[in-house]
Amino acid sequence: MDYNQMALDLHMKYKGKIEVINKVPLKTKDDLSAAYTPGVAKPCMKIKENPDDVYKYTAKSNMIAVVSDGSAVLGLGNIGAAASIPVMEGKCVLFKEFGNVDAFPICVKTQDVDEIVNIVKNIEPVFGGINLEDISGPRCFEIEEKLKKELDIPVFHDDQHGTAIVTGAAVINSLKMAGKKPQDVEVVISGAGAAGNSIARLLLSMNIKNVVVCDSKGALSSKRDGLDKYKKELAEMTNKNDEDGTLEEIIKNKDIFIGVSAPGTVTKEMIQSMNERSIVFPMANPTPEIMPDLAKEGGAFIIGTGRSDFPNQVNNVLAFPGVFRGTLDVRASDINEEMKIAAAYAIAESVRDEDMSVDFILPNPFVEEVHKNVAAKVSKAAIDSGVARLHL
Amino acid sequence: MDYNQMALDLHMKYKGKIEVINKVPLKTKDDLSAAYTPGVAKPCMKIKENPDDVYKYTAKSNMIAVVSDGSAVLGLGNIGAAASIPVMEGKCVLFKEFGNVDAFPICVKTQDVDEIVNIVKNIEPVFGGINLEDISGPRCFEIEEKLKKELDIPVFHDDQHGTAIVTGAAVINSLKMAGKKPQDVEVVISGAGAAGNSIARLLLSMNIKNVVVCDSKGALSSKRDGLDKYKKELAEMTNKNDEDGTLEEIIKNKDIFIGVSAPGTVTKEMIQSMNERSIVFPMANPTPEIMPDLAKEGGAFIIGTGRSDFPNQVNNVLAFPGVFRGTLDVRASDINEEMKIAAAYAIAESVRDEDMSVDFILPNPFVEEVHKNVAAKVSKAAIDSGVARLHL
Repeated sequence: MDYNQMALDLHMKYKGKIEVINKVPLKTKDDLSAAYTPGVAKPCMKIKENPDDVYKYTAKSNMIAVVSDGSAVLGLGNIGAAASIPVMEGKCVLFKEFGNVDAFPICVKTQDVDEIVNIVKNIEPVFGGINLEDISGPRCFEIEEKLKKELDIPVFHDDQHGTAIVTGAAVINSLKMAGKKPQDVEVVISGAGAAGNSIARLLLSMNIKNVVVCDSKGALSSKRDGLDKYKKELAEMTNKNDEDGTLEEIIKNKDIFIGVSAPGTVTKEMIQSMNERSIVFPMANPTPEIMPDLAKEGGAFIIGTGRSDFPNQVNNVLAFPGVFRGTLDVRASDINEEMKIAAAYAIAESVRDEDMSVDFILPNPFVEEVHKNVAAKVSKAAIDSGVARLHL
Repeated sequence: MDYNQMALDLHMKYKGKIEVINKVPLKTKDDLSAAYTPGVAKPCMKIKENPDDVYKYTAKSNMIAVVSDGSAVLGLGNIGAAASIPVMEGKCVLFKEFGNVDAFPICVKTQDVDEIVNIVKNIEPVFGGINLEDISGPRCFEIEEKLKKELDIPVFHDDQHGTAIVTGAAVINSLKMAGKKPQDVEVVISGAGAAGNSIARLLLSMNIKNVVVCDSKGALSSKRDGLDKYKKELAEMTNKNDEDGTLEEIIKNKDIFIGVSAPGTVTKEMIQSMNERSIVFPMANPTPEIMPDLAKEGGAFIIGTGRSDFPNQVNNVLAFPGVFRGTLDVRASDINEEMKIAAAYAIAESVRDEDMSVDFILPNPFVEEVHKNVAAKVSKAAIDSGVARLHL
C-alpha cells in the first residue's frame, strides 16, 4: 500500500480530519433563545456563582486539548507547529473514534517551556484534560511537571505514558507466554528520552526485578558524569546492580529488550547474548533497532515493534482513548501510576488466553471492548487511589 | 417562555453544545495508516516544505477561534473565562449552523492585553480566522489592533463589526421605508464603546451625511477634554458640525437614533424632538434605551431593538456566519470596511420589497439564503478590495 499517496489524497479530499459540530437543536427561534441569548445568560451566571458548574453546563467534561509545539513529531524531528497539525488532528480523531472523547488540537508556535505552560494554563477553562504530544525532551518533562502543578485537570504526555502503558501490556502477556514472572526478569531499555523514562518507571511499579536504561553512551549508572536532572533521577531509581557499560555489554543475560532509540542499535549477536526465551521490542519508528527477521535469527522468542506491518504492534492507540475516557468519566484530577498500571493490565487481559500466541500478544484496537475495559479499569483505579472527583 | 429554565435544562442535558468529530473514514487498519501513522507523515512534510499547504491538508481553512476573556459578557459584565463558555459555545454552534464554519471557543483566564495577544498569536496555526467576543473596551480595540498587525489571518471583533453590519442593514432598509437618502440624514449614536465606535465608522463609509456619537457625558466633539485615544479618534472623524451638548440636546432634529448604551437613556420627549419619520434603534440589552411602545408614542416611524420579542431585532447572527463564510471561502487576509459594507447591503437586500414594512426591515436568520448571500457578497468585496488570497 502506498500510504503516502493515500494520506495526501485523504487529507486533501476532506480538508483535514476534524469538524466542530453542534449537538443541540437549533431550528426554531425558541431553540436559539435557549442555546444563545437571552437564555444562555443563566448557565453563565450559574458557573459564575459555582465554578464547578462548568462541568455541568459546558462541553468541558468531555473535552481535551492535544497540545504540541511540533518539536519532536513522529520520526520527523522539529518540524514546527503548523506542520504538526495533521498528526495532532489524527490524534483527535482517534480520541473520538475509540474513546468518544472530544479532542481539539492546540499547536503552539513557541517552543519556550514557560510560554507553553502559560498558554495552556490560560486556555484551560474549556478543557477537562490536557494531552501533551510530540514535544522534545527534556522540555516535555518540565512542561508536564509545571502544568501538573498549575492545573487541577489531568495532564498526560502520551509519548511517555501512553507508550509505557502499551509496552507494559506487551510485557505482561509476553512473560505469560514465556513462562516467566515479573519479579524474576531483568530488562534493558535502549533510549532515555520521554518514552524510555516512563517505561522504566512503569515496569518498576509493576514489580519487574531490574531495569537498566541505556542512552547512546551506555547504561545510566551512578558512575556516569554529566547526566541531566531527569537522567540522573532515572539512574537512581533503576539499575539496582549499578551496572556500567555499553548497550552491547548490558543486554547480555537480560530477559527483555525494549528499544525506544534509533535504527540499527542492536545486532543479531546481541540478541543471542540474552537469556533464553528473550522478549524483544525494538520500537524505533519507522525503522526498528533491529529488524524482526534478524531478531528471530538471534533467537528472540517474542518480537514486537511500533509498525503495523509486523506482528505485535505496540500502538499507543490501545491506551490513550480509554485512559482519557476513564479519567474524564470520574473527573480525575490526575492520571497517576495506579491508573497507568490498571490500563496496562486491562489491555493485556483483553487478549484471551486461547487467542494468545507469540505473534498475538496485544489486542486489535478496532475491538471496542478493549477501550471500554481500559476506561472502566482506569476509572476504578482513579477512585481507589483517591484522585476521582466523581464516583460512578 | 421561561428561557432561563429551558437554557439550564438544555445545557445540562447535552453537557454543553459543541462536539469535535471525525470527518474521515476510520474503520480499517488502512484507514488508520492514512489518517495517522505512517501515512500522516507525508502531509506533515508537505506543510514543512510549503507552509501554505496547511490550508490544503488540515482543517485550518474552515476553522476559526471564538476568543474571549469573559470581561464583558452579554449584559452580565466581567464574569470571567469559565462563566463565559456557554456564550462562546453558543457562538460556535451558530457559526456552524448558519455558516458551516467550524468554530472553537478559546476562553482565556488572563485579562492582560499583551498576554491575550501573545496567546492568540501562538495558537494561530490551526485557525483560519479569529472572532473576538465580549471583551471590554478599550482593551478590545487594542487587542484587535495588535492581532491584526501580528497575524495574516482575519481578525474580527463581532461586538463591534457584527453589530455595525446589522445596524447598517437596518439603516439601509429603514431609509428606504422612510423615503430618505443616506447623504441627507443625520444620526446620533448613544454609546461610544465597541459597538458605537464601529457603527459610526460604518455609517460614515455608507455616505451618511453626519454622525454624532454621545457617551454618558454627551457628544464627542473637539471641545471635550480627557477623551481616551479611541474616543478622540472617533470625535475627529464624526460630528462634522462639532456639536456639543447632552444626548437630549443632540438628538433634536436628528433622523436616526442608535442606542448601544444603557436602559432608560431616552425619553418620549426626546423622540418627539427628532425629525419626522424618525428611525429609532434602542439596542441596549436586555432593557433598551427606550421601550418600543414609548418610542412609538414619541412618533418614531421605525423601531428596532436587540430583543427577539419585539419586531426588527438587530441580531448579529444575521452577519457573522456569512461574513466568516465569505472570508474563509476566498482566504481573505482581513475583513475590511468594503467587506462589512457588502455584508450590510447583502442583509438589507435579503428583505424583498414586497415583504418590507415598518415592522419587517431585517430578514429572518433561519432563511439559509440570507447567509449565502452575505457570504457571496463578502467574498466578492474581498476579491475586489485585494485582500482575497484565493479567487473563486
